[in-house]
Amino acid sequence: MNGAERLVRTLLDESVDVCFTNPGTSEMHFVAALDRVDGMRCVLGLFEGVVTGAADGYWRMARRPASTLLHLGPGLANGLANLHNARKARSGIVNVVGEHARAHVALDAPLTSDIEAIARPMSHWVQTIGSPAGVEVAARAAVQAATEPPGRIATLVLPADCAWTEEPAGAPRVARAPRPAAAAPDAEAIEAAAAVLRSGEPTVLLLGGEACHEAGLEIAGRIAAASGCALMTEFAVARVARGAGRVAAQRVPYVVDAAVAALAPYRNIVLVGAREPVSFFAYPGKRGRQAAPGTRVVEVADATQDPTAALAGLAEALEARRLAPARVAERGAVEAPDGPMSLEGIGRVVAAVLPEQAVVVDESVSSGRGFGGPTAGAAPHDWLTGTGGSIGFGLPTAIGAAIAVPGRKVLALEGDGSAMYTVQSLWTMAREGLDVTVLVFANRSYRILLGEYAGVGAGSPGPRATDMLSIDRPTIDWVGLARSMGVEAGRASDLGELARELRRGFASPGPYLVEAVL
Amino acid sequence: MNGAERLVRTLLDESVDVCFTNPGTSEMHFVAALDRVDGMRCVLGLFEGVVTGAADGYWRMARRPASTLLHLGPGLANGLANLHNARKARSGIVNVVGEHARAHVALDAPLTSDIEAIARPMSHWVQTIGSPAGVEVAARAAVQAATEPPGRIATLVLPADCAWTEEPAGAPRVARAPRPAAAAPDAEAIEAAAAVLRSGEPTVLLLGGEACHEAGLEIAGRIAAASGCALMTEFAVARVARGAGRVAAQRVPYVVDAAVAALAPYRNIVLVGAREPVSFFAYPGKRGRQAAPGTRVVEVADATQDPTAALAGLAEALEARRLAPARVAERGAVEAPDGPMSLEGIGRVVAAVLPEQAVVVDESVSSGRGFGGPTAGAAPHDWLTGTGGSIGFGLPTAIGAAIAVPGRKVLALEGDGSAMYTVQSLWTMAREGLDVTVLVFANRSYRILLGEYAGVGAGSPGPRATDMLSIDRPTIDWVGLARSMGVEAGRASDLGELARELRRGFASPGPYLVEAVL
Repeated sequence: MNGAERLVRTLLDESVDVCFTNPGTSEMHFVAALDRVDGMRCVLGLFEGVVTGAADGYWRMARRPASTLLHLGPGLANGLANLHNARKARSGIVNVVGEHARAHVALDAPLTSDIEAIARPMSHWVQTIGSPAGVEVAARAAVQAATEPPGRIATLVLPADCAWTEEPAGAPRVARAPRPAAAAPDAEAIEAAAAVLRSGEPTVLLLGGEACHEAGLEIAGRIAAASGCALMTEFAVARVARGAGRVAAQRVPYVVDAAVAALAPYRNIVLVGAREPVSFFAYPGKRGRQAAPGTRVVEVADATQDPTAALAGLAEALEARRLAPARVAERGAVEAPDGPMSLEGIGRVVAAVLPEQAVVVDESVSSGRGFGGPTAGAAPHDWLTGTGGSIGFGLPTAIGAAIAVPGRKVLALEGDGSAMYTVQSLWTMAREGLDVTVLVFANRSYRILLGEYAGVGAGSPGPRATDMLSIDRPTIDWVGLARSMGVEAGRASDLGELARELRRGFASPGPYLVEAVL
Repeated sequence: MNGAERLVRTLLDESVDVCFTNPGTSEMHFVAALDRVDGMRCVLGLFEGVVTGAADGYWRMARRPASTLLHLGPGLANGLANLHNARKARSGIVNVVGEHARAHVALDAPLTSDIEAIARPMSHWVQTIGSPAGVEVAARAAVQAATEPPGRIATLVLPADCAWTEEPAGAPRVARAPRPAAAAPDAEAIEAAAAVLRSGEPTVLLLGGEACHEAGLEIAGRIAAASGCALMTEFAVARVARGAGRVAAQRVPYVVDAAVAALAPYRNIVLVGAREPVSFFAYPGKRGRQAAPGTRVVEVADATQDPTAALAGLAEALEARRLAPARVAERGAVEAPDGPMSLEGIGRVVAAVLPEQAVVVDESVSSGRGFGGPTAGAAPHDWLTGTGGSIGFGLPTAIGAAIAVPGRKVLALEGDGSAMYTVQSLWTMAREGLDVTVLVFANRSYRILLGEYAGVGAGSPGPRATDMLSIDRPTIDWVGLARSMGVEAGRASDLGELARELRRGFASPGPYLVEAVL
């Protein structure tokens, strides 16, 4: 058995059985091993940002890592931006990056680069396999690193000769280790937070990471029932459980003044898997921290600690375990509105047509900012947002989510600007027949930047600045673009058409793209 | 004047007057400055790989740097792969990367990353502007670094507050320094190489970098006339002058066995701006160095030395200055062949229809491997190849070339797999009305990898491997894809249609895409 086959077998033994790939010559033995080993689902992306973003989406829904297969330093480089997002989403990923054969590196061939240096800024763990005997030990260490709570980026560099050489007799064999468990929350921190919650002072319980999943929100709802605290989630959360019958938590707004206003009523912030809110960007004359000066901030669980256990501890301390949380009202059938296109109306259409247990991937940027309200009472769903601010995460994340939970419908909300960064994703959706409906907001501009332009004190854009923030020359034909990559598509010019088109997308088993002309 | 305006003014004063951009919030003041300062041509790309690749193409043809404008660490990350190619092409580029305001970095907002660490693997020079007073000095240093021979990647990080803050009175002003000159070749090295060339032993003069431009080849042709040496260029060269009436130099082949065979006849290799040939990849049981063992290798000029002066010195030493070089025969009008599509036939069609002074950007990967012969006698042209092996350089490089030499026709040869990496380039071509004809070889596979698969000793691909190397499910409709981004397009199924379609592309003033169905 050669090193590549050993690597595939070890990944499978570690329950890593999905590989998002964009291989090249140095990865050919890994590709060849796929025909000798059963069980690895390989998904091809035509650009590496698709590959790494898909692995992010896969972790968010499957809660176990996928692997990627990337071609040397430049292939890894193309995947870095979505690894940045995945890192901030606390997703676990095992990157396998092919490297030249060890003797070839010194020759400085065209594709030679410092792969470890490229990997490090976006990876928690980086290791280059040192010999054909070392494949199994390194691969297990990589998976172990990727699954260290809450989830980490592990990058394993595989020299081509370590892939193609037969594993020597006597190569170290190691058993699969148990997955590392999240650290238990600190009892004193729980007691300190409970005291704050008992104080009667206006307090917000701010949730991040897994605390925003259904189980965490459920307990948080009981804590709110016992203490009267408010519930909020961070602005950027990998996955939030939402919808009718669920416990609602307000998202900290993106816009600085709105975030400051939302947090202003509270004298205390209790953090569970969350960090103190800071602005996405700095603006002249505005503070970066969004809580009012003097607000007391108490952390119950940091990102590495079990947030659900922390919430359970808090509920116990507050004798809240048997209380009934406030839930979003169950709704009967809701009629989708008709009429001219508006962002507010789109939010109501999405809420009306969203299928039960849908996964919404939200890269709507400015267009979807107001969707929180209208969709709060939609059918139960998970809402996945961008976590690292790097544009181009949405379509790839939708791919990974669709592969992780094949029985559920995926809705990707995309700005037209943002959808272009990793537009090759459409092809992979078609190839894999993924049940993804893509809603593109065709406002034909980097609309968010028109707002940010004023926000940073630059005034009103003149003609040259406007030109750099507009993408209407030429307009992009999203229906034609989707069809060119094998994705059926339709255009909607009013809310009635939008509802019809979205329903068509959800009814079809494969991908469907809807261009909403704004 | 704020820092952003100072930066734009300084770049212009340094003759950097083209900026390829994909800006975000942290770069808004740079964008705003464009409306207050005349003279900077800004070209928007919808993905950062388009931006950096365009800057590479611009340098290759204009021989002076463009700037890029990139959004924090992830924006830079998306541009890294084409910076890798640019670095290996020895292109000079000034990257301007926006960073959070200095006080905001410590808050670890979502987009925070270690920008300098991301930049370093692909940059020769990295600097973060330290204060609003330091913009001009840093900007001039960046341009100086980018123009250091032969051309370097300089990355300047611009914190948002240094952009938006008024330049303080007394900020250091510096004058534009003269451009750094290439080092003169070493007289002893010239004499040693001249001795080799005089020896009568079979010798090849191997050219790289600027030695492959028209002036260098002209002198090289005289040296060949005097000494009987052969002329070759490296496999991966940023730009080679070719065509009728020019001095021809054979390109070292990509395939290892062919490269070894091509170099086997020579006892000596004289390097001028070139490096000793090594294989692109390592293959089991094959040497990485392609020259026969025992071949004497003599370097006359390394990458930092003036290769044209080195060639002139050699010609002087060999008393070759007045000799007439062998030239590729001038040809009369050549009829494009008709008949079924074949790679050999496509090469002949390209040769027949290529306009005078065209710029050919070659990312045809496997399809164009045999084009060297048929196109050798085409109308005079420049041929630009991938230098770093990272796929996705072709369309962006064509953008930069078209902007650098607007009077010349650009032909981009693209594999269908390779064209997908930075397919957003088509939109920029349409927006800027660039005179680029794109020829896509629709073989619906990563054809090169099917060859590499056998080359690395993996045998014949089984069904799963074949699946990872095929892009025919679904097929990509290149005509529809181009049109969706505003680029007119046509399909060719035989050589007659191909000739007609290419001529249509060259006749139209804007971009045109031809899908050659293989």
